[in-house]
Amino acid sequence: MSQGTRDIEALIETMARLPGLGPRSARRAVLHLIKKRTALMAPLATIMAHVAASARECSRCGNIGTEEICAICANPARQTGEICVVEDVADLWAMERGQAFRGRYHVLGGTLSALDAVGPDELHIPRLLDRIAEEGVTEVILALNATVDGQTTAHYIAEALEASGVQVTSLAQGVPIGGELDYLDDGTIQAALRARKRF
Amino acid sequence: MSQGTRDIEALIETMARLPGLGPRSARRAVLHLIKKRTALMAPLATIMAHVAASARECSRCGNIGTEEICAICANPARQTGEICVVEDVADLWAMERGQAFRGRYHVLGGTLSALDAVGPDELHIPRLLDRIAEEGVTEVILALNATVDGQTTAHYIAEALEASGVQVTSLAQGVPIGGELDYLDDGTIQAALRARKRF
Repeated sequence: MSQGTRDIEALIETMARLPGLGPRSARRAVLHLIKKRTALMAPLATIMAHVAASARECSRCGNIGTEEICAICANPARQTGEICVVEDVADLWAMERGQAFRGRYHVLGGTLSALDAVGPDELHIPRLLDRIAEEGVTEVILALNATVDGQTTAHYIAEALEASGVQVTSLAQGVPIGGELDYLDDGTIQAALRARKRF
Repeated sequence: MSQGTRDIEALIETMARLPGLGPRSARRAVLHLIKKRTALMAPLATIMAHVAASARECSRCGNIGTEEICAICANPARQTGEICVVEDVADLWAMERGQAFRGRYHVLGGTLSALDAVGPDELHIPRLLDRIAEEGVTEVILALNATVDGQTTAHYIAEALEASGVQVTSLAQGVPIGGELDYLDDGTIQAALRARKRF
């Protein structure tokens, strides 16, 4: 096997380690890249190297950016006194796509887990407590996933914040927009019924 | 939006253009890459730039390699007098994984298509005819996909080769290994029955 073939093999193996890609789809993707090596593959390699060299976690909220402090934390207009707590940067991106929240974030980087030895320190919960005083926070919105781990973590944070006197809220649970009742799980139906509102 | 955020957005958009990845899975992949930017993203960018700069089509068979002539064509042990005609490099890779064919390949780069204005010249069929004389070919194995376009192309090549006196064969059609009859389409059952063999 020549060096060139080995490089292509190594590229396929590396691509196959991305989430959502297996060996088969990695082969397809690499073949597509090689066919479009000037228009697609070379620019992709360049921008990937660029992001790999410049990306870093915001030292305040854990969001991904290129500076010590991310663009959201650095924006004074977003110091609204609200902090939205999310598990992961992907959730932060999802919230931003919603364009409904104008405050700042705090990325936990996971959920509490006794099994995986993830404790409050790993989730930057002490840093969250520090920020509440420093940034004059009045409301912490818990936007954690509606899983057992997510909700356990939410309860832990709510308790940790009790002494600070800050208001703690969480995202509403109920029927998703466009959702059909027949396709919803029992838990969602129950939660939506319990939290019913005057029409 | 900062330059860093724009770079990340551009990376997501470029990744989303790969086959098998959409906007959502591209976001997940990029986030995964950023989290493992030293261990995964930087090496991936390096190897991708390397392959983008060095990959090229073999001038003889159309396979992808790094030299004027690919590793298979350059290997004298593979001059067996057999040429396997495939539609695409992905099919060549599939044949190589099978480890059953020891001859050389000819990659068409597609199938004949009146609608897309793909004619014999686009598929390097004249080059295939040249190779038969040059390389002392005795058998051409048509390993085209069992689709209408693939089979139309196979018939065209078989006719074009008639005058050359070379033996033209095609892959057997029938029940796949591990296949259950109940899940096979009618055409496959019919083909397998017509081509039945003494047990």
